[in-house]
Amino acid sequence: MEFNLQHKDLQSKARAATIATDHGTIETPIFMPVGTVASVKAVHQRELKEDIDPDIILGNTYHLYLRPKTEILKKAGGLHKFMGWDRNILTDSGGYQVYSLSGNRKIKEEGVKFKSHIDGSLHTFTPENVMEIQRDIGGDIIMAFDECTPYPCDYNYAKRSMHMTHRWLDRCLAHLKRTPFSYDYTQAFFPIVQGSTYRELRMQSAEYIAGVGAEGNAIGGLSVGEPAEEMYAMTEVVCDILPEDKPRYLMGVGTPINILENIALGVDMFDCVMPTRNARNGMLFTAQGTINIKNKKWEADFSPIDEMGITFVDTEYSKAYLRHLFVANEYLGKQIATIHNLGFYLWLVREARKRILAGDFIPWKNGMVNQMDKRL
Amino acid sequence: MEFNLQHKDLQSKARAATIATDHGTIETPIFMPVGTVASVKAVHQRELKEDIDPDIILGNTYHLYLRPKTEILKKAGGLHKFMGWDRNILTDSGGYQVYSLSGNRKIKEEGVKFKSHIDGSLHTFTPENVMEIQRDIGGDIIMAFDECTPYPCDYNYAKRSMHMTHRWLDRCLAHLKRTPFSYDYTQAFFPIVQGSTYRELRMQSAEYIAGVGAEGNAIGGLSVGEPAEEMYAMTEVVCDILPEDKPRYLMGVGTPINILENIALGVDMFDCVMPTRNARNGMLFTAQGTINIKNKKWEADFSPIDEMGITFVDTEYSKAYLRHLFVANEYLGKQIATIHNLGFYLWLVREARKRILAGDFIPWKNGMVNQMDKRL
Repeated sequence: MEFNLQHKDLQSKARAATIATDHGTIETPIFMPVGTVASVKAVHQRELKEDIDPDIILGNTYHLYLRPKTEILKKAGGLHKFMGWDRNILTDSGGYQVYSLSGNRKIKEEGVKFKSHIDGSLHTFTPENVMEIQRDIGGDIIMAFDECTPYPCDYNYAKRSMHMTHRWLDRCLAHLKRTPFSYDYTQAFFPIVQGSTYRELRMQSAEYIAGVGAEGNAIGGLSVGEPAEEMYAMTEVVCDILPEDKPRYLMGVGTPINILENIALGVDMFDCVMPTRNARNGMLFTAQGTINIKNKKWEADFSPIDEMGITFVDTEYSKAYLRHLFVANEYLGKQIATIHNLGFYLWLVREARKRILAGDFIPWKNGMVNQMDKRL
Repeated sequence: MEFNLQHKDLQSKARAATIATDHGTIETPIFMPVGTVASVKAVHQRELKEDIDPDIILGNTYHLYLRPKTEILKKAGGLHKFMGWDRNILTDSGGYQVYSLSGNRKIKEEGVKFKSHIDGSLHTFTPENVMEIQRDIGGDIIMAFDECTPYPCDYNYAKRSMHMTHRWLDRCLAHLKRTPFSYDYTQAFFPIVQGSTYRELRMQSAEYIAGVGAEGNAIGGLSVGEPAEEMYAMTEVVCDILPEDKPRYLMGVGTPINILENIALGVDMFDCVMPTRNARNGMLFTAQGTINIKNKKWEADFSPIDEMGITFVDTEYSKAYLRHLFVANEYLGKQIATIHNLGFYLWLVREARKRILAGDFIPWKNGMVNQMDKRL
């Protein structure tokens, strides 16, 4: 993996960069659509590539391990081939899902025992086997196995958990050395900063993570319910410590506004289920604010979904038509809203990049944050 | 509407023709994908047009009347504009749905009182208001309001019902004369032959329907549970009476085999929810037979969904991937299977047309019927 820092904003800590891997170049800042179980929900791969056009998407190790199972992905030659996606993929480590989705999880030093949310079967994730699973899934970027603490989190718990995450990181690194790539391309490994919302712990964790000299670094344990201001405060502290010459990935964030604010603090990479999940509930993100398309006010509004026309759905369908599809619970409604929202998120990060390169990121960001806060 | 009979098969009653309307030319035999409530379920209009490519689709008056409601469609300038479909649309008369979907329907000479399947609200369909509704929905071809008898059906009931359908037809015709087109294009009107599975009634009804001299004629009340042989017997009797110089539309039929057999008997137009509904349940139609994609046997079969590659989904996704999507209950599974099945149905009728024009329809049809009967 090659990281090339192209431009640093003078009025903020925003950066524009490129990340080159064996599956192509990622221009940052980037938003990675979430393809949890080998599909970005309700979107064809062709649409994802040609209409939404992200350089990288995300897959969830927890989900893929359970279904279709690592063995099937290995037989297929990895996730890229299995799902028919030839650009970059990042896989998370399953940490977050084990804590949020599975029943009866037991966290010990050795690892985590958990029950599948699908059939209740028992499984164990350890730093070692999660590295092996991620080798076989075959993401271009793979993540350390960590504990993601909840919000709010007791200081002592957060501290103990952070230290365990650091020890797990050492085990991940040791095991990766012994575990060759499963396919004919390389994988980069990103460790994860934890420490809840405690400035001191975040600094300590960032120092530790920076110290291992990985190809990129991630910030975890945020966007778990804390106020946005606390999130920004933690991002700022951590970004100031993480090395400048490596990509920084803020996991699971967030709203369009969260993304712009964190770009300003030095984050390069984002992922979140919000654009896709909210789309399926009829919530659209636009540059002018959010739309609840189920609202009766759109019933006879035959104007395009979004005059900006970022993706084909925006101008080929009207608000009234999309509302009708949601009211009638038609699949196509979810499909249209998902493409719209992902198209908008990708437009947003591409536009941020342009503005960083052009030198007017901060005034543009401030204007956008103001606009996007509205409900239409 | 202009019907142009291009070729009659010498070994069967199959025909190749064109139907020209203000929204373009329909090449027959044709299969019309069902877009019940202003959407062919799980398919974008762009995919419908560019990948599946039917000259005409179907909308259901019963559903559209209830949602988004006729008033909204009228404000939109008709169904074409509302849903963004600039090719032909045929609307049924709501007859079939009133009997099959709504609760507490009461059929009287005047019309049918029924309860909405959505909210239980009370409504009445009469030959007159159904003509007005279809004017406002704005299909290129609109259908007579009829009673669709169930199977099996008592002879006396079938006879009484058929006569009422004929009287309703007269009322439809009289009311259409008083009701101008709602938009700036013309609409053709098709009456419907009924008579259950009684040869004598079917002949009587076909004579009556032929007698009104409509621009096209339909056969209703079949594919409601009767054995295929009875369906074919009725189609044959009716097609021999209906005028040769008008299109013949067999409503609600059917399997790929049903379609080929009925083409051989002189039918030009078909519609059915089978390719779309079965797709959503994981059943694929192919030239080699049917596939239940949920079956474990496809778990590690990484071959293309269908080597024929009629639509992009067939070769861009594997059987194992599609199976995984169904097992994980992902939207994309239904989207892929629907495009595949509709692509196959449209290929089937286009190929039938080619074979009719080339003069080898019957040997081709017999081979296909044999092949398609298999379960893969």
